[in-house]
Amino acid sequence: MTYNAGQYDVIVIGAGHAGVEAGVAAARMGAKTLMLTLNLDTIAYMPCNPSIGGPAKGIVVREVDALGGVMAKVIDKTYIQMRMLNTRKGPAVQALRAQADKALYSNEMKKVIENEENLTIRQAMVEKLIVEDGVCKGVITETHAAYYGKAVIITTGTYLRGKILMGDLEYESGPNNQRPSINLSKNLEELGIQLVRFKTGTPPRVKSQTIDYSKTEIQPGDEEARAFSYETTEFITDQIPCWLTYTNETTHQVINDNLGLSAMYSGMKRGTGPRYCPSIEDKIVRFHDKPRHQIFLEPEGRNTEEVYVQGLSTSLPESVQHEMIKSIPGLENAEIMRPGYAIEYDAVVPTQLWPSLELKKISGLFTAGQINGTSGYEEAAGQGIMAGINAARKVQGKEPIILDRSQAYIGVLIDDLVTKGTNEPYRLLTSRAEYRLLLRHDNADLRLTEIGYEVGLINEERYRRFTEKKHLIEEEKRRLNKIVIKPTEEVQQMLNEAGASPLKEAIKVYDLLKRPELGYADIEKIIEKNDALTDEVKEQVEIQVKYEGYIKKAKEQVERMLKMEDKKIPEDIDYDAIPGLATEAREKLKKIRPLSVGQASRISGVNPADISILLVYIEQGNIARTAN
Amino acid sequence: MTYNAGQYDVIVIGAGHAGVEAGVAAARMGAKTLMLTLNLDTIAYMPCNPSIGGPAKGIVVREVDALGGVMAKVIDKTYIQMRMLNTRKGPAVQALRAQADKALYSNEMKKVIENEENLTIRQAMVEKLIVEDGVCKGVITETHAAYYGKAVIITTGTYLRGKILMGDLEYESGPNNQRPSINLSKNLEELGIQLVRFKTGTPPRVKSQTIDYSKTEIQPGDEEARAFSYETTEFITDQIPCWLTYTNETTHQVINDNLGLSAMYSGMKRGTGPRYCPSIEDKIVRFHDKPRHQIFLEPEGRNTEEVYVQGLSTSLPESVQHEMIKSIPGLENAEIMRPGYAIEYDAVVPTQLWPSLELKKISGLFTAGQINGTSGYEEAAGQGIMAGINAARKVQGKEPIILDRSQAYIGVLIDDLVTKGTNEPYRLLTSRAEYRLLLRHDNADLRLTEIGYEVGLINEERYRRFTEKKHLIEEEKRRLNKIVIKPTEEVQQMLNEAGASPLKEAIKVYDLLKRPELGYADIEKIIEKNDALTDEVKEQVEIQVKYEGYIKKAKEQVERMLKMEDKKIPEDIDYDAIPGLATEAREKLKKIRPLSVGQASRISGVNPADISILLVYIEQGNIARTAN
Repeated sequence: MTYNAGQYDVIVIGAGHAGVEAGVAAARMGAKTLMLTLNLDTIAYMPCNPSIGGPAKGIVVREVDALGGVMAKVIDKTYIQMRMLNTRKGPAVQALRAQADKALYSNEMKKVIENEENLTIRQAMVEKLIVEDGVCKGVITETHAAYYGKAVIITTGTYLRGKILMGDLEYESGPNNQRPSINLSKNLEELGIQLVRFKTGTPPRVKSQTIDYSKTEIQPGDEEARAFSYETTEFITDQIPCWLTYTNETTHQVINDNLGLSAMYSGMKRGTGPRYCPSIEDKIVRFHDKPRHQIFLEPEGRNTEEVYVQGLSTSLPESVQHEMIKSIPGLENAEIMRPGYAIEYDAVVPTQLWPSLELKKISGLFTAGQINGTSGYEEAAGQGIMAGINAARKVQGKEPIILDRSQAYIGVLIDDLVTKGTNEPYRLLTSRAEYRLLLRHDNADLRLTEIGYEVGLINEERYRRFTEKKHLIEEEKRRLNKIVIKPTEEVQQMLNEAGASPLKEAIKVYDLLKRPELGYADIEKIIEKNDALTDEVKEQVEIQVKYEGYIKKAKEQVERMLKMEDKKIPEDIDYDAIPGLATEAREKLKKIRPLSVGQASRISGVNPADISILLVYIEQGNIARTAN
Repeated sequence: MTYNAGQYDVIVIGAGHAGVEAGVAAARMGAKTLMLTLNLDTIAYMPCNPSIGGPAKGIVVREVDALGGVMAKVIDKTYIQMRMLNTRKGPAVQALRAQADKALYSNEMKKVIENEENLTIRQAMVEKLIVEDGVCKGVITETHAAYYGKAVIITTGTYLRGKILMGDLEYESGPNNQRPSINLSKNLEELGIQLVRFKTGTPPRVKSQTIDYSKTEIQPGDEEARAFSYETTEFITDQIPCWLTYTNETTHQVINDNLGLSAMYSGMKRGTGPRYCPSIEDKIVRFHDKPRHQIFLEPEGRNTEEVYVQGLSTSLPESVQHEMIKSIPGLENAEIMRPGYAIEYDAVVPTQLWPSLELKKISGLFTAGQINGTSGYEEAAGQGIMAGINAARKVQGKEPIILDRSQAYIGVLIDDLVTKGTNEPYRLLTSRAEYRLLLRHDNADLRLTEIGYEVGLINEERYRRFTEKKHLIEEEKRRLNKIVIKPTEEVQQMLNEAGASPLKEAIKVYDLLKRPELGYADIEKIIEKNDALTDEVKEQVEIQVKYEGYIKKAKEQVERMLKMEDKKIPEDIDYDAIPGLATEAREKLKKIRPLSVGQASRISGVNPADISILLVYIEQGNIARTAN
């Protein structure tokens, strides 16, 4: 019945944000790789937010780039706006966020895929895996093609038994009316893989010409040239602004009046939605005392009038969506071009995976991206590249690469997934990382280029430049540690200009740089210039020196926390009385009421930061009781 | 159950090549217009050949432009190659043909649609028409939106109950895995509209890098700047070549060995396929003695590796497609990126339409494009603009515009459809036009700009330029008719250089220009120059003068033919013995065996040219018999 359609090393099912990273990584590592997608016109398609990056996510994009992936380079070529977030906060929470030209991004990624050696891409619907004695040996398509492979990576996103929901409307479909994948899901179940039903949503798109932008606040891109990739040298200067507006009481009234019509509330929906990218109806219900919610108006590209209404994800009936839209300042006359909808889909329970993203039950079978219960293009890309690397290494008879939680957000993400699992579409947040002072935007290359080079994804030229940069940083730190300066007039003047207190005695420049008011640029004025240093190197020296103490302290805190894991939690604890707990953590703790801090720390959604707060609170409580 | 989603003048269902012309035309004529499409990402999508124009079709594109349509302008901005066909033949068969950048064409058309005043575009699935007392009053979508309109135009292409077929694979789908439209089809049947099941096919796409072009013949674009639109002033100079190769005995053997596996031959397919764009398996069977068939390799765009294998349309199983491909010179190692497939769909029997494209049975309901049983983007566009014009005029209380067969290929197309109907996807051919000497590429503006201006689709500025051009042509013809030249040395030398025989006596320049060896450029050497004339005007003067006699003769022939319509055909006639009959006409005549020339002329597929041949043969036969 089937015909032999060829033998490959690695087969990737899907060509979304996980699939493209997996396919390119495997191919560049020398594996003969096949990618199968349902539609060659929707490679790396963005069915939801036309944006890449943001808190934590933006750092993942840098990590993918440092490992040798493609997302950063493609967004650098196709953005319409780029902003560094949190520039007034410390470097640990800074992150890049780009608005993408949706069509261009997809076209550009298609070009990358098509021009990759060792990589074959074909339009096909996979219906079945070839599994013998617990080993995955290939795939079978609906056209009876049997492709044999030494490793198979499934990156099907929201396509598995996808179902679009809007009001009482319900039909089988992938995102944006694409063809869903039905039989592969059934096959996974037959193979004993546990699936879970998740859902996610997307807001309506409105027509730019029908928006009254004068009622909104402009959000321009940064003037400074920014890039995700460490290799980007050309920057897009012609940027397009986004716009900010808000929901109001009328919007909330419309939603409340129609809650019973939401696909979410009418009981049709079995899937669990994303907590950190909730539908507007979820937000209205959950935060019922909040008078307004932010709505960002984000253009979907340079050549289109479609504008993404970020914050208004919904599965309410179309008629209600029109009412919602027209209640919002600036959108009074806005025309909806595509209505919002929710999509329900099958995901693999990720605790069935090894940290390599290979299934424990089926050797050679990997899963990556939204199929593993995550949300977000960046989370997908991060898993995609790791699955690609580990599938290729498996074929080469090598041990998998596992990033640990202190190395990368990708490490945090995968560790969370395979260890804790997730009850809802998982989104990466800075608060999920205990070592977030280490996992910065600026040092993704220092953390991961070595690994990218080792596995064969970073070429010699890039690696040479990287080692040179690293060397210069170390050299400069050493030099600063040697230079002792005295409180000369020149020095005092520099300090005065920088708003810092004057020097009382001689000090190492290295230690002077730790002062919060001073940057490398200030220090440079009073020492001999080192012309070999790039701005990137100077920035890195500054951050490493300046935050040395914080980073050390953070590490110690984590150590301490781990030691205190066995600490008991008072049974009568009132979580509402603990200031600073994240809302999700508070809800989960109230529901589960763990007996120990250790148990609390293993609850999905209770993050290390929450544990720290909890620990401090318990200790204070004990002191208070002792005092009574 | 439904909600009132708004009142429009004209509602267009679909945004393919018919839909966009219909929508833009209606909107530009001042009608408040709504377009509804299943996917905003596939506006004016080319699911088959990435090409616009060619014999007859290219002239339709010019006609659409002369009427004020958009196809010509958009392809002029997005072609990768442009060629004038038949430049060595007379002006009546010359036609432009462009290879399109498929993705760019769609994006550019989306931009046009989005920026059109009076035009709203929205993603929606129409399920039902609102029809009261035989009058169409709007549409209802699956999201319960009731849009009210004074006229509705259905341009659903191949989406109505679309079904993709490949070998034994069969599933409900629009082209390229788009969501099909199921319920609208059922609704049309409920409304008493007669549907017919047609099919069409598309070939596999192969990867450019895997083609050995050295085994093929290059087909470059023209060096001369060409454009479809009369308004285009900027030309794309950087063109991409196509390549020509051929099938061979091995290819034919592979196909013959697997005929039983073709969706066409296995009995699953009820729909009738396009005679003039047949599948390769059709061609092999129908022309079984032909040793090879042309295969053109056409790039699908500048930024993609996908290459369209023109001539290899097929619904054979994927495995057979691989074998077919590798049997063709240059494609021995070619990788298929998308397999070919056939698609079966519902079409409206077009004899149910008035020549305005309004349904006789339901007032205010128009259909245009592939739903009317045609094939081809250009045929769709031609119908689209006429449906748009006539829907808008209906709303305005005006009479419809009907192009007659001597005015435009569009007139021939629509007259054929509504008068004769069609048993298979109808393709426009030069042989379908009895006045084809009149329906030229070069004079589409002279034929139709007046109408475009009258209906309000041609603006004042363009119309002014047009009347000036027309005036200059007439003036120059008058001038040439007044200038009498003598056989001076200068004149004889010009004639000698042009390869024409010397002049014996004085002659009007007008008459001299009729000589086949001479062009306007030659004549210009011996008369006073008229600096006011553009190249376009000179070309037109030349053609009009030169072919005056031919055109007159052609008209007389048609008159004569009509008079002889009652002529009887001998019952024992042997159609195989008549030289010059088109294959389709011969087949149909043998099957139906009409009793009179009049009856023969009304058979779908028997063209005026065939009738002329038949008449001549009958007359000769009669003479022969008389002589016996």
